[in-house]
Amino acid sequence: MSTIENNLVEGNKAYAASFTKGDLALPPSQKYTVLTCMDARIDPSAAFGIPLGAAHVIRNAGASARDAFRSLVISQQLLGTTEVLLVKHTGCGMLTFDNDTARGLVKKNKGEVAAKEVEDLDFLAFPELEEKVQEDVQWLKSKAVEEGVRVTGWIYEVETGRVRKVV
Amino acid sequence: MSTIENNLVEGNKAYAASFTKGDLALPPSQKYTVLTCMDARIDPSAAFGIPLGAAHVIRNAGASARDAFRSLVISQQLLGTTEVLLVKHTGCGMLTFDNDTARGLVKKNKGEVAAKEVEDLDFLAFPELEEKVQEDVQWLKSKAVEEGVRVTGWIYEVETGRVRKVV
Repeated sequence: MSTIENNLVEGNKAYAASFTKGDLALPPSQKYTVLTCMDARIDPSAAFGIPLGAAHVIRNAGASARDAFRSLVISQQLLGTTEVLLVKHTGCGMLTFDNDTARGLVKKNKGEVAAKEVEDLDFLAFPELEEKVQEDVQWLKSKAVEEGVRVTGWIYEVETGRVRKVV
Repeated sequence: MSTIENNLVEGNKAYAASFTKGDLALPPSQKYTVLTCMDARIDPSAAFGIPLGAAHVIRNAGASARDAFRSLVISQQLLGTTEVLLVKHTGCGMLTFDNDTARGLVKKNKGEVAAKEVEDLDFLAFPELEEKVQEDVQWLKSKAVEEGVRVTGWIYEVETGRVRKVV
């Protein structure tokens, strides 16, 4: 077992020892979804005040709405959520590269076969944060399948721990 | 502002008031990635013992490796992580439907235009949990771009709060 695996096993032992929430229902009790970035500096439950069982939490590189579309449709159409909080953040890695850079790095570090695997992959990086929050919210609102779903856009500051509303 | 938005704002105020981790680096300090489900009953930081800043956390419906591919490549190739803990869970919603059911529901509840938006969408549901953990881990390991990345598969029990290793 690796050190990382061992941390999971030990951390989980402590969690399970005082676990009392084994009877929560499958659908989120507060019927909402948080979409945020995979960034290691974000702890959504703590930073966004989400009680266990209350909300779906979707996370991907950059909190991309397009990348999260499948999960959002499932959250809303199959599990009854009606509101999305889309939270991007300051200092996001997605502000620092583009498709050419990413594909070039893969080719250089992993070789031709790996490069082939990502040649059609859109890494969905973006050059401007606030603009991208607005654009993602608009994109979601433009979908017929999202009709009736409330969508708002936010920025989390990794430097201060604060969120602010953009749209 | 909705009740949900208000919860975010109030929960975040309390979090930010005692926030002291504003100087964490962008790349995860422990160089690993947790891929798990968006399910509301999972709190990865607490249940999997992840310190703030230590690991990327990717979450989507069903903890799908295929759906997370873009984020995994970014995590590894651009931000230097070298290990993935893939954690699916008992009682997952993805065990309860298939593409036809999902598309039928969208058509019935949201109409023809919405149905058109999801007609080519693979919802990536799966009928058997343990098998799917193994299959996802194998799929990741088969990718050239994942060469040298350690990938293990786990199941989290929402009834007990415990994780166990599958592969």
